[in-house]
Amino acid sequence: MRDVAIIGIGQTKVGEHWDKSLKELATESILAAIKDARTERVDSLYVGNMLSGELTGQEHLGALVSDFVGLRGVEAVKIEAACGSGAAALRMGYVTVAGELADIVVVAGVEKMTDKPGDAVTASLAMAADGDFEAQNGLSFVALNALLMRRYMHEYGVKHEEFAPFAINAHRNAVNNPYAMFPFAVTAEDFKKSKMIADPVNLLDSSPVCDGSAAVVLCPLDMARHRYASEHPVKLRACAIATDSIALHDRRDLLGLEGAALSAHKAYSQAGLGPQDIDLFEVHDAFTIMSVLSLEVCGFAERGRGTRLGLDGDIAIGGRIPITTMGGLKARGHPVGATGVYQIVEVVEQLRGQAGKNQVSDARLGMAQNIGGSGATVITTILEAMD
Amino acid sequence: MRDVAIIGIGQTKVGEHWDKSLKELATESILAAIKDARTERVDSLYVGNMLSGELTGQEHLGALVSDFVGLRGVEAVKIEAACGSGAAALRMGYVTVAGELADIVVVAGVEKMTDKPGDAVTASLAMAADGDFEAQNGLSFVALNALLMRRYMHEYGVKHEEFAPFAINAHRNAVNNPYAMFPFAVTAEDFKKSKMIADPVNLLDSSPVCDGSAAVVLCPLDMARHRYASEHPVKLRACAIATDSIALHDRRDLLGLEGAALSAHKAYSQAGLGPQDIDLFEVHDAFTIMSVLSLEVCGFAERGRGTRLGLDGDIAIGGRIPITTMGGLKARGHPVGATGVYQIVEVVEQLRGQAGKNQVSDARLGMAQNIGGSGATVITTILEAMD
Repeated sequence: MRDVAIIGIGQTKVGEHWDKSLKELATESILAAIKDARTERVDSLYVGNMLSGELTGQEHLGALVSDFVGLRGVEAVKIEAACGSGAAALRMGYVTVAGELADIVVVAGVEKMTDKPGDAVTASLAMAADGDFEAQNGLSFVALNALLMRRYMHEYGVKHEEFAPFAINAHRNAVNNPYAMFPFAVTAEDFKKSKMIADPVNLLDSSPVCDGSAAVVLCPLDMARHRYASEHPVKLRACAIATDSIALHDRRDLLGLEGAALSAHKAYSQAGLGPQDIDLFEVHDAFTIMSVLSLEVCGFAERGRGTRLGLDGDIAIGGRIPITTMGGLKARGHPVGATGVYQIVEVVEQLRGQAGKNQVSDARLGMAQNIGGSGATVITTILEAMD
Repeated sequence: MRDVAIIGIGQTKVGEHWDKSLKELATESILAAIKDARTERVDSLYVGNMLSGELTGQEHLGALVSDFVGLRGVEAVKIEAACGSGAAALRMGYVTVAGELADIVVVAGVEKMTDKPGDAVTASLAMAADGDFEAQNGLSFVALNALLMRRYMHEYGVKHEEFAPFAINAHRNAVNNPYAMFPFAVTAEDFKKSKMIADPVNLLDSSPVCDGSAAVVLCPLDMARHRYASEHPVKLRACAIATDSIALHDRRDLLGLEGAALSAHKAYSQAGLGPQDIDLFEVHDAFTIMSVLSLEVCGFAERGRGTRLGLDGDIAIGGRIPITTMGGLKARGHPVGATGVYQIVEVVEQLRGQAGKNQVSDARLGMAQNIGGSGATVITTILEAMD
């Protein structure tokens, strides 16, 4: 095994891209990442995507995208792990480079969700849940998160308004992200008045349906140092996948998010680090409750105390553990299979010192956690700035 | 990098499994493979599948299947590369073990196609083609293969009946395979009278729509030797993916099947072997024309001479290069995302000397080629019997 670096990043603006196809979105981010990496060679392409079949009538994205971006011939496959598809593809890229099976690997995440009506999208997203027990009984993804949130509020005596800081923080940070879907601020008052989706989850608790693509280029750290001696590659300190039961009713500990806890534990072990070492955390804020649970099981707050991080300002840039620094799933947007790669792109921006007005000062170690389903597949990645 | 062995195999009978769900099929093959491997530990699970979303309303198979088979917590993802999904998952498993990122990896392929009506299946399979240029214009998969076959017949002056030996050979071999969907013989007369599907492709040129699952267990070769000193593990000499344009109109050489040629070239190079060394070849006979093209570009026949291998008896067990030794996609069946793993299971059976009446004598080196789309993603695997 050898150390792996990220040497290129690329992304499209997140939004409703009715004028661009899935392969055009992927191409835009991949070509940007390849240009950023200044490489002319690519050995393998891993495409993270969840719903291309259901929502755009196209599978076989590995071959499709590799040809369209001018890489015909290279190893290329699609990786699917629901909303964790993007970082699951990153894990495959990491394994391939670390294991010395290839040198230059492009990992892209892409999703195109807005060409179909909302009910079709809701039904497609439910394919990440357990078909026999959850989707079959009419549970949509927002409903599953509502069950978690209701239980959390009951268990710990937390009020719904205490989740507001997560939405407010994400939107505030999105203002300075040119790639964000919702670059505008929201207030506690907005949160309070926000439309109810599935009680207690309201619109501002929820991330949007949207289109987008992000990509990164990986290579061995030694090669990165040699080729890019004057620049600052970012080292992948860890990238770990863990799973849990898909169905909520089958979990040993409903609010324990055991897949996320195990994934974070594996990543911390691989890196020889702990939560106290992390300078920023791109959390999977598909819903505010998911941010809270993720922060707790990753060791940033005690159980039942996660909302305090928002109320106390700890999650803000300049706070103890800045999260969703470029807007997160909530305000940058959540094109599901692409999200995990967007998170990595944003951590790299922070570690390179390229995050502009949202720069976390002295950011050396960044973490991202990408979650598939309501916690069934979880990928935790830790990145480090190199001198 | 370290050498990788296959220490366990499992498979379900291929057929119309209306009484079993997708996860039940996957579980049957995985538990059989784990039992065969006599391992109690599994680090990672890769599931090859193409159409679970479209045909069974379920994505997120990594987490779903890992939990259902009792492996909750392990790394698990779904790999998709159209009909090449099974062997693409094998490639990911190979990379993970060879690269020392995990020790015991289960690779499963699964597909459930018969719960939906035929036209829905045809439309779903077309998602492996280029949506914008092929599927959009009504080209189904059999139509794409008909274009290739027509061109081949025109280019080389080959008659349709010259393809018959491929179907006859596959069916003859399926008779002795308890897992085959069609364990009965067919004759040249049957082939001649067979129903036309898309001129010139007839029913007996074509593999069936069906359900099934196959699985293998991988581990480092050293571990296999140590743990199973009295038995015969099979070594993965090579496993290589290459791609080509998805759309036929965009290929540089229509009958050159460049993705397959490149994939075979990479596999031969990795193994330090050539076609003359291969004792049997599990070819991707989704359609007879695909077998012929694959045999040619892999170096078993000159271009335009592939049908001679059938006519001269070279492809039979006991012939120069036995193919589809357990029935192939044609007669064992072609549950698309599972096929690539079935091929590997069958090569392992041959190399272990467990192929019964279909045993290729002195089989030491076996090859399998799994093809996604009409040649856009191709995975070539070479396996060797160990003493």
